[in-house]
Amino acid sequence: MAMKEVVLLDSWACPFSMRVRIALAQKGVDYESKEEDLLLPKSELLLKLNPVHKKIPVLIHNDRPVCESLVILQYVDEVWNHTNPLLPFDPYQRAQARFWADFIEKKTFETTQRVWATKGEEQEVGKKEFIDHFKFLEQQLGDKPYFGGDSFGYVDVVLIPFYSWFYAFETLGDFKIEESCPKIIAWAKRCMQKENVASSLPDQEKVYEFVLAYRKKLGVD
Amino acid sequence: MAMKEVVLLDSWACPFSMRVRIALAQKGVDYESKEEDLLLPKSELLLKLNPVHKKIPVLIHNDRPVCESLVILQYVDEVWNHTNPLLPFDPYQRAQARFWADFIEKKTFETTQRVWATKGEEQEVGKKEFIDHFKFLEQQLGDKPYFGGDSFGYVDVVLIPFYSWFYAFETLGDFKIEESCPKIIAWAKRCMQKENVASSLPDQEKVYEFVLAYRKKLGVD
Repeated sequence: MAMKEVVLLDSWACPFSMRVRIALAQKGVDYESKEEDLLLPKSELLLKLNPVHKKIPVLIHNDRPVCESLVILQYVDEVWNHTNPLLPFDPYQRAQARFWADFIEKKTFETTQRVWATKGEEQEVGKKEFIDHFKFLEQQLGDKPYFGGDSFGYVDVVLIPFYSWFYAFETLGDFKIEESCPKIIAWAKRCMQKENVASSLPDQEKVYEFVLAYRKKLGVD
Repeated sequence: MAMKEVVLLDSWACPFSMRVRIALAQKGVDYESKEEDLLLPKSELLLKLNPVHKKIPVLIHNDRPVCESLVILQYVDEVWNHTNPLLPFDPYQRAQARFWADFIEKKTFETTQRVWATKGEEQEVGKKEFIDHFKFLEQQLGDKPYFGGDSFGYVDVVLIPFYSWFYAFETLGDFKIEESCPKIIAWAKRCMQKENVASSLPDQEKVYEFVLAYRKKLGVD
């Protein structure tokens, strides 16, 4: 049987895959999800389609792979440009959105890893950095409903997947994100009221169970 | 006196600033360069305009700052879209260009640092990684004249500034990049024949002198 026109090498708990799931949902694109199990060795298909980074997500569109979630999001936005734009139209606003997406990419993910994949002193450093980075984001959000302003856009899609890991971060790190970043929590709850977001993100407690298994795999516990 | 419409917080030896200088030259944009001395404390203007990363380059356009070189390049390409496009028109080709620019950003810079800012075993590891990464780029370039195909484009702009550091890498690392990556060297020489590139890149031996001073500042020597 031929593959669908759009296929996603996906994994339910992977925040980067969630970004693509949200974007495809926002664009109304019908696709086939091929699940990679992050606790098992990588599939031959993944190694073949992303030989450089060997990472999901990979979007396969008309048999051609696109790798790296931020690259995929911009591709999706440009190909399916008839509805729900992710990036704003104005070049300066686009630059600002790309800047904050890049900030999340460079700073936030590494820091979240220190919160969930370590313990002891390293985890304490990670928690402090996590809060510092999210305070930058809280400040950038300000009193706007979304990072994109009045409408849910690129930076929102890039950041919201981490919300599904917040329960794991808070439980393993023994801290409450809301105490330092109440606007981020309010924003996340606002995003979760959108069907395309809620249906693309897994349950927080299910993610917590997955993280416990991942910590075991990494030898942290 | 009022600032020019376009100002670049710049530094002559900084590869990221060189990217922006090339892009502005390709677009024919007249601008004022404000030099930051990388061996001195950061200027107040830089700290004010890029409070998140505190890094050059910063492009100031009509008094508004744009930070991070890849974000700036895309901004420049979108604002001055009348000539010499950096990114290709086709969404898939654009995604490929963004993928390789991201690869250079994530992998190559860190590795070059290991070559010029370390010594001993760490430097040996850096040299091996450097060659590994440039072999990926050599393979991607293939027999095309430029990464962008027949015309000089986004990935070329992102990568070529490192060429001005090659003499420093080779001298400090005691190796020859051409032995492993002859196509990269031929491509670099091809790019250097372009006036907009040659006039935006400093002399390799001057960069080497700068790198020696930087190593002293970092306490490597």
